[in-house]
Amino acid sequence: MRTVADGAWGGCKRYYQIAEPSFVSSVEEILRLPSSRSSDEQLFRDLMDRFTVLAEACSRFSQEVYRRTGTSVETDTKEMIERNLGIARSVFGKQSLETLATIYLYNSVGFDELRSALGPISFTFLRGKLRQLEKEGFVQRDDSSRGQSARFSLTHKGKMIARLGEPVFLYLRLVGGWRDAAPESTPPVKTGADPAPGGARQT
Amino acid sequence: MRTVADGAWGGCKRYYQIAEPSFVSSVEEILRLPSSRSSDEQLFRDLMDRFTVLAEACSRFSQEVYRRTGTSVETDTKEMIERNLGIARSVFGKQSLETLATIYLYNSVGFDELRSALGPISFTFLRGKLRQLEKEGFVQRDDSSRGQSARFSLTHKGKMIARLGEPVFLYLRLVGGWRDAAPESTPPVKTGADPAPGGARQT
Repeated sequence: MRTVADGAWGGCKRYYQIAEPSFVSSVEEILRLPSSRSSDEQLFRDLMDRFTVLAEACSRFSQEVYRRTGTSVETDTKEMIERNLGIARSVFGKQSLETLATIYLYNSVGFDELRSALGPISFTFLRGKLRQLEKEGFVQRDDSSRGQSARFSLTHKGKMIARLGEPVFLYLRLVGGWRDAAPESTPPVKTGADPAPGGARQT
Repeated sequence: MRTVADGAWGGCKRYYQIAEPSFVSSVEEILRLPSSRSSDEQLFRDLMDRFTVLAEACSRFSQEVYRRTGTSVETDTKEMIERNLGIARSVFGKQSLETLATIYLYNSVGFDELRSALGPISFTFLRGKLRQLEKEGFVQRDDSSRGQSARFSLTHKGKMIARLGEPVFLYLRLVGGWRDAAPESTPPVKTGADPAPGGARQT
């Protein structure tokens, strides 16, 4: 069964048209590097290329959704912004994203374990947050567990969001340095290059 | 040039293995509906199928990134949660997501226009937020504009996140009812069905 993902691994296309001015300086920088780069850097470049392909695919997907629903990004900008703001504020409100991402990684998690993973967060706040996410249809209590021993997992809708959103987290982790302790928004020290697509092999 | 997106439109595979219990009840509900469903509902089902394919592709993509970087979701769960929390808190902190999504839709936007679009937000807060997003490499000032007339756009990294993340917003908008004024987390009234994949045509 062929899926979308198979296409992504079939070949590594590059999309130079979305490269920024910083792309040029990153190429210049790379040209000054020794010709035998480390395998870590090769891996970084390769993954960056793949993220670019996926981002392009997501962008085309979104354009197709707009087309099918008769939505024009150009003429409906204000309405779209309002909708996006509404979604960002209701769904991705305080600690929602953190809670969903953590439940997703645990698959199924108890209240205390979740609270411990989320760090400094009050019992009352997390209980309210879970109720809100349950009401919104992202989180469910596992059937066999109730009360103190209740376990939480993502609903279909919650998993859809987690799956769709996971590459965003992975991309940010990669450009911040995969193994660095603290997430940063700068490229990894080892390469010293901008995360522009396919830069390493263009002259 | 074949891309990932082309694969998504080539055929609509369904992934029943990720269906939730609510999927069964949605099928039962659909069986009670008149056989000639509205085209709106057909469109909804069709788009849901496509979102499922994309989510599956994103999930496989993420698994491949984990594999290539030697990361085990099972054994490195705690570290991954910490990294995700760090990213969620630094990158997606208060109003960051809203600001990035709005600049993305405008492509290039002036300060006043952006502030007006974001609704009640103070001059000082937005100025600080833009500086933070500039520092983190998501936002840039357009070359030709400075001072009062400065215009802002997304950097390559900012656009990558916006492109990767756009389907999350579109999915949430779709399950909340595409044309409804207020974003909701419930399925559209017209179909009265759960957004489980491919439910409409299974018997």
